[in-house]
Amino acid sequence: METVLITGATGFLGRHCLAALAERAGSIHILGRTKPESKCGIATFHAVDLLQPPDLEPLLREIRPTHLLHLAWIAIPGIYWTSLENLDWVAASLRLLRAFVASGGQRAVIAGTCAEYDWSAAEVCDEATTPLRPATLYGVCKNALREVAQAFAATTNLSLAWARLFFLHGPHEPPNRLAPSVIRSLLDAKPAACGSGTARRDFLYVEDVADALITLLASDVQNAVNIGSGEAVSIREVVEQIGVLLGRPELIRFGARPDPAGEPPLLTANVRRLREQLSWKPRRTLQEGLAETIRWWREQTL
Amino acid sequence: METVLITGATGFLGRHCLAALAERAGSIHILGRTKPESKCGIATFHAVDLLQPPDLEPLLREIRPTHLLHLAWIAIPGIYWTSLENLDWVAASLRLLRAFVASGGQRAVIAGTCAEYDWSAAEVCDEATTPLRPATLYGVCKNALREVAQAFAATTNLSLAWARLFFLHGPHEPPNRLAPSVIRSLLDAKPAACGSGTARRDFLYVEDVADALITLLASDVQNAVNIGSGEAVSIREVVEQIGVLLGRPELIRFGARPDPAGEPPLLTANVRRLREQLSWKPRRTLQEGLAETIRWWREQTL
Repeated sequence: METVLITGATGFLGRHCLAALAERAGSIHILGRTKPESKCGIATFHAVDLLQPPDLEPLLREIRPTHLLHLAWIAIPGIYWTSLENLDWVAASLRLLRAFVASGGQRAVIAGTCAEYDWSAAEVCDEATTPLRPATLYGVCKNALREVAQAFAATTNLSLAWARLFFLHGPHEPPNRLAPSVIRSLLDAKPAACGSGTARRDFLYVEDVADALITLLASDVQNAVNIGSGEAVSIREVVEQIGVLLGRPELIRFGARPDPAGEPPLLTANVRRLREQLSWKPRRTLQEGLAETIRWWREQTL
Repeated sequence: METVLITGATGFLGRHCLAALAERAGSIHILGRTKPESKCGIATFHAVDLLQPPDLEPLLREIRPTHLLHLAWIAIPGIYWTSLENLDWVAASLRLLRAFVASGGQRAVIAGTCAEYDWSAAEVCDEATTPLRPATLYGVCKNALREVAQAFAATTNLSLAWARLFFLHGPHEPPNRLAPSVIRSLLDAKPAACGSGTARRDFLYVEDVADALITLLASDVQNAVNIGSGEAVSIREVVEQIGVLLGRPELIRFGARPDPAGEPPLLTANVRRLREQLSWKPRRTLQEGLAETIRWWREQTL
């Protein structure tokens, strides 16, 4: 890939994508409000608030990106599902896409979400057959952006893939999310209050997610592609593995918290497209990923 | 209605809405690039390019609109179906909606289109049962805006209706569209080249459309509402009526032009919601509307 433009590069997923891109891009250009801490020799940072845009076109005509990986979006845990800022990100994403194509861009990958699917209709979500009926403002906005982006791509001959993300875990996950909060409690030798943990989800280690996205970006595979492991693991199993890896399983308190309302018992990705069309599979097992995450949290608390 | 904000007030439909609003609004505020020619005593014009927005919120906090009628969109005949500017109007509409609600707005009506429906699945389009599968960039963008606007309204307690427009005719229709071009040819005593005219459509006189929109705006009816006559009339019939009204039927040449490709033979609105929930029906027959349009074109060519 010649010249890659990336947004959201300081986020949980974005920083791992930046690392994965370093080996596969001629040059990398980052658009964002804050400069990533991590060094990346071939990357140039451009300070741009995508939500308060000057006209992006002059900058993009200078950069002349061939590829776009658009990850930036509101992602504050607990907030993003219903934040009105979701509307601003739809608008910002459309402006970015317009400027990218106007400056000669050829290939784009945009981050979508499993929350686009109708969770009441799907257990194993399939790109071709599972109905799209998002139940949240976040899911509606992502899905609406996808519809417009795909029609726009068809009109402009842009090659576009929509990466439908499932559940990510790994270093840099926000500290109050499930895995980090259990890890931090156990590292502090404190009890970890959990829900029942019966819900089963499709978890993928964040470096694997990043690798899948870069593989997708480098390909010409179009339309929606589920990014997941294809395996359903109960939240209980994830938490128990953390307990074993840290040698403190007795500190875990299942049932000490209520389960979130309205969440489906099973939600997993059909990864046929990822396997067959991209010949891609994860490098790490769930346990290997959790072990690396634990190692990273130990370093943070030194 | 206390304070009505309107966009697109200089357009084919908008100017008629402005006239219809005069009787039903406490005050009217127009946002747009150009000031409407027609005088409207209670209306205040604010020069704003919605596509190149400064922050709209300060202005809207001054106006404090209670109602919003959002019609502005790219509408250049032959261009708007595939124009990339459709994306800009999605973004502009979302910004407007955000600012309207942030400044205390309570009720909004946005112009949608029958092009949101799956034309291969529908002959009589019903809001509740006809699949939404737009085939054009224009239809996709309108439909995506609707999805986001409805989810946004549910989140913010905004009362929102989506006015799904069918086929409008009347004074101020762009001169190259079907009815005006036939009228102008016949007024010039020149032949009018037409297609076969076999397709049947739902036509509504533009003043009736405007009246329906203002009635909808003043109500609390929510979600999508078809705005049409509920009657299917062949294009041939419309053209023949123009021929009779102008006394020159012999100048009409059916079959002299190819029919547009990919257009459905029948496309009409189920107007149950409009009739039952708004107790609304058209004031003019097709013939009465055409007669008024002809009178208007005669005045233009004097």
